[in-house]
Amino acid sequence: MTGSIKYLLAENEIPTAWYNLAADLPFRPNPPLHPRTLEPLGPDDLATLFPPSLIEQEMTSRRFVDIPGEVLDVYRLWRPTPLVRARRLERALPTRARIYYKYEGVSPAGSHKPNTAVAQAHYNHRDGTRRLTTETGAGQWGSALALACSFFGLECTVYMVRISYEQKPYRKAFMRVHGADVTPSPSSRTACGRAILEDQPDSPGSLGIAISEAVEDAAGDPRACYSLGSVLNHVLLHQTVIGLETRRQLEMAGERPDAVVGCFGGGSNFAGLAFPLLSLDGTGPQVIAAEPAACPTLTRGVYAYDYGDAAGIAPVAHMFTLGHSFVPPRIHAGGLRYHGAAPLASALLHHGLISARAVGQLDAFAAASLFARTEGILPAPESAHAIQVVVELAREAEREKTEPCIVFGLSGHGHFDMGAYEAYLDGLLEDYQHPREEIERALAQLPQVAGGR
Amino acid sequence: MTGSIKYLLAENEIPTAWYNLAADLPFRPNPPLHPRTLEPLGPDDLATLFPPSLIEQEMTSRRFVDIPGEVLDVYRLWRPTPLVRARRLERALPTRARIYYKYEGVSPAGSHKPNTAVAQAHYNHRDGTRRLTTETGAGQWGSALALACSFFGLECTVYMVRISYEQKPYRKAFMRVHGADVTPSPSSRTACGRAILEDQPDSPGSLGIAISEAVEDAAGDPRACYSLGSVLNHVLLHQTVIGLETRRQLEMAGERPDAVVGCFGGGSNFAGLAFPLLSLDGTGPQVIAAEPAACPTLTRGVYAYDYGDAAGIAPVAHMFTLGHSFVPPRIHAGGLRYHGAAPLASALLHHGLISARAVGQLDAFAAASLFARTEGILPAPESAHAIQVVVELAREAEREKTEPCIVFGLSGHGHFDMGAYEAYLDGLLEDYQHPREEIERALAQLPQVAGGR
Repeated sequence: MTGSIKYLLAENEIPTAWYNLAADLPFRPNPPLHPRTLEPLGPDDLATLFPPSLIEQEMTSRRFVDIPGEVLDVYRLWRPTPLVRARRLERALPTRARIYYKYEGVSPAGSHKPNTAVAQAHYNHRDGTRRLTTETGAGQWGSALALACSFFGLECTVYMVRISYEQKPYRKAFMRVHGADVTPSPSSRTACGRAILEDQPDSPGSLGIAISEAVEDAAGDPRACYSLGSVLNHVLLHQTVIGLETRRQLEMAGERPDAVVGCFGGGSNFAGLAFPLLSLDGTGPQVIAAEPAACPTLTRGVYAYDYGDAAGIAPVAHMFTLGHSFVPPRIHAGGLRYHGAAPLASALLHHGLISARAVGQLDAFAAASLFARTEGILPAPESAHAIQVVVELAREAEREKTEPCIVFGLSGHGHFDMGAYEAYLDGLLEDYQHPREEIERALAQLPQVAGGR
Repeated sequence: MTGSIKYLLAENEIPTAWYNLAADLPFRPNPPLHPRTLEPLGPDDLATLFPPSLIEQEMTSRRFVDIPGEVLDVYRLWRPTPLVRARRLERALPTRARIYYKYEGVSPAGSHKPNTAVAQAHYNHRDGTRRLTTETGAGQWGSALALACSFFGLECTVYMVRISYEQKPYRKAFMRVHGADVTPSPSSRTACGRAILEDQPDSPGSLGIAISEAVEDAAGDPRACYSLGSVLNHVLLHQTVIGLETRRQLEMAGERPDAVVGCFGGGSNFAGLAFPLLSLDGTGPQVIAAEPAACPTLTRGVYAYDYGDAAGIAPVAHMFTLGHSFVPPRIHAGGLRYHGAAPLASALLHHGLISARAVGQLDAFAAASLFARTEGILPAPESAHAIQVVVELAREAEREKTEPCIVFGLSGHGHFDMGAYEAYLDGLLEDYQHPREEIERALAQLPQVAGGR
């Protein structure tokens, strides 16, 4: 039995700058709009929510942005992360494809999220913020921000999607140990939370609703800023440390990837891996976003201007969306339950530079279980969607008798998601496909922006 | 803010041989005895429970035992593990002590346990075993063995201490994903389980009881062997990969440790870190075992011959023990709830070559929370006991104005133990000290062996 092979970088090979894909795009993504005026957003409009240095990063057209020493100091706790050739998985399938995974679950929060959480906490601390507010779905993002805030001495307020708050009490405890204040969303703390509870007292919540609450909270407190775990340009920027390391590790392995796969919720994990590996001239790998069939933003949504949150108080972005009023069903991959998608990734999809596939959760858990039994690592349910796409690609390669090199992002481990695994093992999970009308109904509520759709 | 510093070895610096302390001891530990005859145990007596190659390792007097390539192949999935200078913790205390931790939570099971689980699964597989039975307390060991068995195609039957089975459903799911058959202990599957249930239908179980069940199960099936996660010589041997790596990493850091601290349940984590760092001539570091005050084997037990299990069907070992009928209270550090202690570690304690301290669980969780907020890693409750002893040592050093180098084992992360952290945060945990009579009562039931006490 030949084992899987790990490609490790030395600590001094952690990238010292993040890569900004926007600088290389052959087209200009449409700007975000003000939620009330629907006019293009200026830096001043963002100043109630974000500190100056992150607003600058959000807008920058520099190709590389230096990673501050204070951030590298924290990255070194778990970075560089391993790239692993999944030889046991290859044999189990079996396939002649060479499958590699970049493993971000070695971070103290168990996912890729601290890559940006630490950067955001640092810049906020430097710019004088005292408290950060945020939302969390599965709890990965909230855990990461709680951790990052404890490193930089910031207070942290987390609005946690109620369904996850109930299904994942241990995530809540994790955030509390790191000093965060965690509240289930929708909550009665904010006007938009109260409005939703009045309408639907047992609302399971959604990322969109939790974002509304966190934004409202931050906007009303001059000491506080808001922090988002995905979607925005600066968040994707920070995550590119993943793909930059991967590029070097693939060189060590003597590989040029034919396919790159990342699971997709808001897009930060996907972009972090894929952007540095992307060829904008069409000579590079096929790049595939793996999203849940139960929240099919990229495969069944539209490319249009929409609010980033449920209440319509967050900026309006040009992106793939299912409509900001879309509430995804209670699937377990909480981190993938977002109605929208990162504008940068959306633009790539719109221009045909990447593609997307939807994966049912039963297939995802089956692929994750196979991965756990062969590679030893129990994947986060989010990452499981990428694994299932890899399994599909490997089967396609067998049919076509090709031997591709496939790289995917194992964005986190599933140690906080064992309830979902247990439900899967006990046969209690099912797949969910939205009826066409349900999606059409949500899409009918998009804001009317000239030329936006 | 200067970050913590990580000392990393290259993959080809994983030790290629385990270290056998028994070869260097200036005294000869008393041999294990047969549970019925109380006569010294021969290799044949062990053959119903263990495969030949592990029996040979249990008895060997070779100083180093080569690590098979198949085992190294799996080790490489997460080894070498980091040694980290805990600068943030040092500043938070504050202390002039230099504190280092060896972090074993990067393994796929989240603890040090796979170091021996993988080795045991390999040797069993090689020697023709088809199924392994075992017990588990907190679930760390069962998870590790389930994982290891899935690598080598072995069936795995886990008897899980009932209190942990109930408190930690997610550990159970983890084992099931890896293909293990998990049953709460005491169970009705075995004669000794049925006997205990008859006497005490709501028994919370104990490691001693679960061991009895797993031993009985294996002894009755010629296809099966039994696997123990601690205590035995060959288990401690496999864990020395931890201390061997640490020794090299301390050289990289230019340090000679003044104190080495490991949490102590059965002794495998402690021995794995400490044995390779120990000086038998008294010139080396102070070596301290950190055990829970609620199961004070080393600090309140006696050095005597006792059964390894509750029912008296496992071998009788010369060790520190609270008596095999001792049932520890429901403290959360399930991995430390064992009435006995590894004979090798017990002999060291008896001869004054190591020392032991008992830690209350409230102090342990307070120390763990401080560690999480400063170093970012949320410790397993077991490891938290070691952290509290480190905190005590650092405070003592401040009083004495010394600047010691302290190394401790962070044996695992606490991601599966968030229920315990939540109880701690909510003020629901309390300390437990056994009344003297309770311990005396258990000690009165030791087997009568001439010269054994």
